Amino acid sequence: MADISVNDIQKLRQDAGVGMMDAKKALTDADGDMDKAYELLRERGQAQMAKRADREANEGTIGSYIHIQNDRPVMGVLVELACETDFVAKSDEFKHVADEIAMHVSWGKPTWVTRDEVDWDALVKERELFERQAQAEGKPEHVIEKIVDGKIEAWYADNVLYDQKFVNSEKFDGTVGDMVGQLGSKMGENIAVRRVARVAVGE
Amino acid sequence: MADISVNDIQKLRQDAGVGMMDAKKALTDADGDMDKAYELLRERGQAQMAKRADREANEGTIGSYIHIQNDRPVMGVLVELACETDFVAKSDEFKHVADEIAMHVSWGKPTWVTRDEVDWDALVKERELFERQAQAEGKPEHVIEKIVDGKIEAWYADNVLYDQKFVNSEKFDGTVGDMVGQLGSKMGENIAVRRVARVAVGE
Repeated sequence: MADISVNDIQKLRQDAGVGMMDAKKALTDADGDMDKAYELLRERGQAQMAKRADREANEGTIGSYIHIQNDRPVMGVLVELACETDFVAKSDEFKHVADEIAMHVSWGKPTWVTRDEVDWDALVKERELFERQAQAEGKPEHVIEKIVDGKIEAWYADNVLYDQKFVNSEKFDGTVGDMVGQLGSKMGENIAVRRVARVAVGE
Repeated sequence: MADISVNDIQKLRQDAGVGMMDAKKALTDADGDMDKAYELLRERGQAQMAKRADREANEGTIGSYIHIQNDRPVMGVLVELACETDFVAKSDEFKHVADEIAMHVSWGKPTWVTRDEVDWDALVKERELFERQAQAEGKPEHVIEKIVDGKIEAWYADNVLYDQKFVNSEKFDGTVGDMVGQLGSKMGENIAVRRVARVAVGE
């Protein structure tokens, strides 16, 4: 595998207007060649646009969860769950999942919804921190990247909603991303969490 | 009255760590003298801190409002209403006002809670726009400032929660700021809207 630099990924993201994971994947597939990666992204974008033509997820619902403590609401969560049709938006199962995700957020306190939203500076800072930790622990250079990758995965699982394990494994055993993906497959529509707001007393 | 420059207000805000209205008032009272204005702010801050010692508004509740349309929730609002004691926080009247403000926000869509939160660049841009409008209309120079001040007041009333007229004048005839202030007087505590979140499908 080619050595993909963080700067190249960053530049490609800006040039092509895509998320970090897409940029990284394109660069890897293009063996680190920036021009080729840019072409790949354009092709993929066009292919995806054709597939989803007239299938924008503009419908949806607002899931909510209010936590009561000491005789009054002390925390509230709102989640916008988007889908393509009015029919799915008002179905009981769809509304139920939106509320379940809101309940999960009250506990999981994610900072971002998807990996693509993750703040670039925050990610670079975490990587550097994990690298220094591994070096300080005297790990051999050739395994450090692997260790750091593993720690970054765990960091995603802490901070990114779609990577978090759903709070109640008896109801759903998997990540919130899996939950949304399975619902999308079942309903046959693009389904996505679009926005999350969490407000708690004194935070 | 001394001529108060926007730059002086901005500088004083940063130096003294206060809101725009406090900085402007201090500069006006100090006749535009920056050092005197800074001293005034320090004195006022100390006086206020003494008055409110041990009276921080760390308690509160979360007011909420969910708007249903076409068989599902399409908009949600959360409002953190802060007070000083647990006793007030769990009173029915306090919780009721928090919900009323959430309902108001669903309609009023304020960008900011108080004037002190207003984005400085946005305010300067509005002032300049109103100035150019008044000049284009051929208004005499000596009344332009007054006209602009009036338009800025109207702009606040559109965009700042505390300056908005409460949506239902039969329930409360005044601004949301008045509503919060009156509740504070009645309860004998510092009461304030601390945070607002509004999430709507497709926005």
